[in-house]
Amino acid sequence: MISLGGLGEIGKNMTVFEYGEDMIIVDCGLSFPTDDMLGIDLVIPDITYLTQNKDRIRGIVLTHGHEDHIGALPYILKELNVPVYGTQLTIALVENKLIEHKMMNTTTRIVVKQGDTIKLGSSFKIEFIRSNHSIADAVMLGIWTPVGTLIHTGDFKVDYTPIRGSVLDLHRLAELGKQGVLALLADSTNVGKLGHNPSERKVGETIDKVFNQYKDRRIMVATFASNIDRVQQVITAAHKHNRKVAVLGRSMVNIVRTANELGYLDIPEKTLIESNQINRYKDEELVTIMTGSQGEPMAALSRMAFSEHKQIDLKPGDVIVLSSTPIPGNEKTVSKVVNELAKKGTIIVREDTHVSGHATQEELKLIHALVRPKYFIPVHGEYRHLQQHTELAVELGMEKENTMILSIGDVLEMNAEGCKVVGRVPSGQVLVDGLGVGDVGNVVLRDRKLLSQDGLIMVVMTLERDSKAVVSGPDVISRGFVYVREAEPLMNEAKRVVQRSLDHCQDQGIVSWSEIKSVVKDDLRTFIWQKTRRNPIILPIIMEI
Amino acid sequence: MISLGGLGEIGKNMTVFEYGEDMIIVDCGLSFPTDDMLGIDLVIPDITYLTQNKDRIRGIVLTHGHEDHIGALPYILKELNVPVYGTQLTIALVENKLIEHKMMNTTTRIVVKQGDTIKLGSSFKIEFIRSNHSIADAVMLGIWTPVGTLIHTGDFKVDYTPIRGSVLDLHRLAELGKQGVLALLADSTNVGKLGHNPSERKVGETIDKVFNQYKDRRIMVATFASNIDRVQQVITAAHKHNRKVAVLGRSMVNIVRTANELGYLDIPEKTLIESNQINRYKDEELVTIMTGSQGEPMAALSRMAFSEHKQIDLKPGDVIVLSSTPIPGNEKTVSKVVNELAKKGTIIVREDTHVSGHATQEELKLIHALVRPKYFIPVHGEYRHLQQHTELAVELGMEKENTMILSIGDVLEMNAEGCKVVGRVPSGQVLVDGLGVGDVGNVVLRDRKLLSQDGLIMVVMTLERDSKAVVSGPDVISRGFVYVREAEPLMNEAKRVVQRSLDHCQDQGIVSWSEIKSVVKDDLRTFIWQKTRRNPIILPIIMEI
Repeated sequence: MISLGGLGEIGKNMTVFEYGEDMIIVDCGLSFPTDDMLGIDLVIPDITYLTQNKDRIRGIVLTHGHEDHIGALPYILKELNVPVYGTQLTIALVENKLIEHKMMNTTTRIVVKQGDTIKLGSSFKIEFIRSNHSIADAVMLGIWTPVGTLIHTGDFKVDYTPIRGSVLDLHRLAELGKQGVLALLADSTNVGKLGHNPSERKVGETIDKVFNQYKDRRIMVATFASNIDRVQQVITAAHKHNRKVAVLGRSMVNIVRTANELGYLDIPEKTLIESNQINRYKDEELVTIMTGSQGEPMAALSRMAFSEHKQIDLKPGDVIVLSSTPIPGNEKTVSKVVNELAKKGTIIVREDTHVSGHATQEELKLIHALVRPKYFIPVHGEYRHLQQHTELAVELGMEKENTMILSIGDVLEMNAEGCKVVGRVPSGQVLVDGLGVGDVGNVVLRDRKLLSQDGLIMVVMTLERDSKAVVSGPDVISRGFVYVREAEPLMNEAKRVVQRSLDHCQDQGIVSWSEIKSVVKDDLRTFIWQKTRRNPIILPIIMEI
Repeated sequence: MISLGGLGEIGKNMTVFEYGEDMIIVDCGLSFPTDDMLGIDLVIPDITYLTQNKDRIRGIVLTHGHEDHIGALPYILKELNVPVYGTQLTIALVENKLIEHKMMNTTTRIVVKQGDTIKLGSSFKIEFIRSNHSIADAVMLGIWTPVGTLIHTGDFKVDYTPIRGSVLDLHRLAELGKQGVLALLADSTNVGKLGHNPSERKVGETIDKVFNQYKDRRIMVATFASNIDRVQQVITAAHKHNRKVAVLGRSMVNIVRTANELGYLDIPEKTLIESNQINRYKDEELVTIMTGSQGEPMAALSRMAFSEHKQIDLKPGDVIVLSSTPIPGNEKTVSKVVNELAKKGTIIVREDTHVSGHATQEELKLIHALVRPKYFIPVHGEYRHLQQHTELAVELGMEKENTMILSIGDVLEMNAEGCKVVGRVPSGQVLVDGLGVGDVGNVVLRDRKLLSQDGLIMVVMTLERDSKAVVSGPDVISRGFVYVREAEPLMNEAKRVVQRSLDHCQDQGIVSWSEIKSVVKDDLRTFIWQKTRRNPIILPIIMEI
């Protein structure tokens, strides 16, 4: 087993299993750039190891349709054209991506059902076990190998009363546990949280209360686009209270359309309306479901908050349900939106409006107790989560040496006799910026960082090829350094500094371009630092004629 | 009353009161740059209004020594040389700043004691009322004016068993409340939190437990440098358990020295050791107190976590007490440090290790109930906090129209008959970058933002003055755009694009520099976008000879 992502981090989940000549991949996710990845759109796993072993890959198996499990597929499939297996909704969301990347004709998709088992290569059998998560059609994986059975939970929670279907297949896990499981790989995201998550239905109760309490007001619910069950609950409440539903925000519209076409939503006739019809309805006849619950600046809720939304002008007394909690790192962005909403006099409902999709401690204990694995490998989490999850396993009676905290790239070899890290393969992150995949590296990021801090100053001059005499310039131009009006005297002084550096080079007989540049750069940097305590990038450009 | 900072935001607190010809200023704080203020060091209030009224200002009165209440002083005092009033520790911390800015000789400081009353101008009398906060020597202000008494709480909490002194002066507030208070201005930071803060002593109990539990291990406590009482509790525990204390981190060392000199710390003899003596002591003989509890990259704790600290190498089993909770926005930075600490095998203690310095709901209610003001103005908070604080006041029986949510710059006029906003004065934020105060504005920030996203491409060429013929170049140079090895073919193609643009200009008889630049810029931008879906800043530079 080799993880290429999702260990020591939240996101870009990807795990490789191999036996003999066969190799399978579980999930293929992206992660979002951290604050220091300036200008980067998204991050995908480094798959050097997979491209070196193309011929051995029997397929990619998906646990569910969230971006951190399927988002890297279009990029990875360009390198590895292998079949993709998943449940109906998961594959439909993959197909939305493939259409966008014009890859529908070249990609084999195989739709499976919860409960199905497939054979991959001669070594692997995969069972898709019914699970619960914050997106419909999620599965855990049972993976049969010649040395034993593995269970990979994917992302999961235990919901005894989910909106669609039933609780995750506890009976099957119990059965497998009884037969003997070699290793459990389990979601660690919420291991830091005590107790048991409430059921998704609890949120439905809150939503119903809001509809009862604010009968005369316009109600708007912001949540994650992919949370179909949440959307269903808003639609159910709307129907019960005789309101029409408008769906707002591109990703929300896309996912609701896909889920509806496939029968994952139960939408009573004439309940949905188009966003351009909103103004035909009175406040008490309307509810909107929309994106932006994480404060994303371009999403529907933010645009409303900052009065930039085309269809909706918020007014005092509008009821806004924030049906999500801020993902770590988004707290300030969400606060910003909440402040604007409050200034507009809207009523903001944030309590009991969300439940997490990730198992907390008591749910994790249940899975450990049912599966009773020989080895335990915590996945999907930062280091502190993985560590806490192994501690939880040990508390439940597992031998400490049978728990393994891995890093991405570690090669874990296991069989009934033992389990150990036997090597490393290339692994890491590949940055996607626009059309470029992997063409932005540390040097570019460092330059962007420096540019973002103090901007840059360019010194341009034309010198005569032989004599190195100045024919034109030096000109000094800055960007992102200092406000132009303030800069003029400083820039004029800077020109004189450069002129002195050039004179100095002439006097000293310094004639190599690189030496001249280096003198100019050093002198100017010292001057600028003394004057401003700033360190812009300084770029001397010499033209010769 | 005019607020120049601290309303609709957390930070840069500054409030102006005026009557007739007299004007006084309460606090003079800075705030830290938000994520979009690239390269900015700190933010101070816009004091245009004050510089226009220099002659009327009778003094600056400080409530306590935190940065968001005193941090802008060195910058503001350069514009307004007025006397500064505060309690002993507050003035000492101000003096540390004045020394750094070489302003000790030009600034008048007046030290007052809790309970003192001073007269400012002919209209104002200020009483310094004993308070509790997460820094010693904090005061609330009673402000006597010809139209009535105001109370400004500053930052406060209610601690019945503080480490130094006693609970805030409830009796005085009760007395003032009985005499009649025109307006209350009160801290809103924690209005969203239910209940009552525990006493600072609770943290002491946790610290003592940690000392008892980990008798053989090295213990390190990270907290805010300015929390003298927290430092005292660690020192007390260390003395009790026969450990030496080393103070690490520049700001921690400075504040501990200042507080100790003034008698705010009770340090038993031979308890403190210098950081370079650490290695002479065994693990069980040592405790460190240090900066970095917010994950600040340059602070002691981060440097240890990333193995960059000069004196301390962390080892498995070291006990790290994180004695603070992440300030909103710092969650990810703190997680990063915690993950590194966990990887090193250290034991991390985070529970019951911190109490807030800001009053929660029940404490706020107590102050409202004691003071019984005619008008209420919530201060120190984002809009949602101010709003929630007025709701709390209304719940306690205040008329809604007697509560005022203000914005910075609003001029609030009040007397016994009424209270209303009658105008606006200039207000806002001034960005400090290095030595520059206010020389980085929106244009520079926008350029830094663009540079940080996709970098920049420079096109440099030398043209003959009259014919506009190319004498040298065009050269194309990029920074922060794309990795050089990948860029070469692209840059060569870009050169050809520029060459074609120049040819086009020649053909069309376009001869003005600005037109040529504009053609080159547009053509190259289109080319780069098509090839990469990126939008770097494009900067054509033409030299003429």
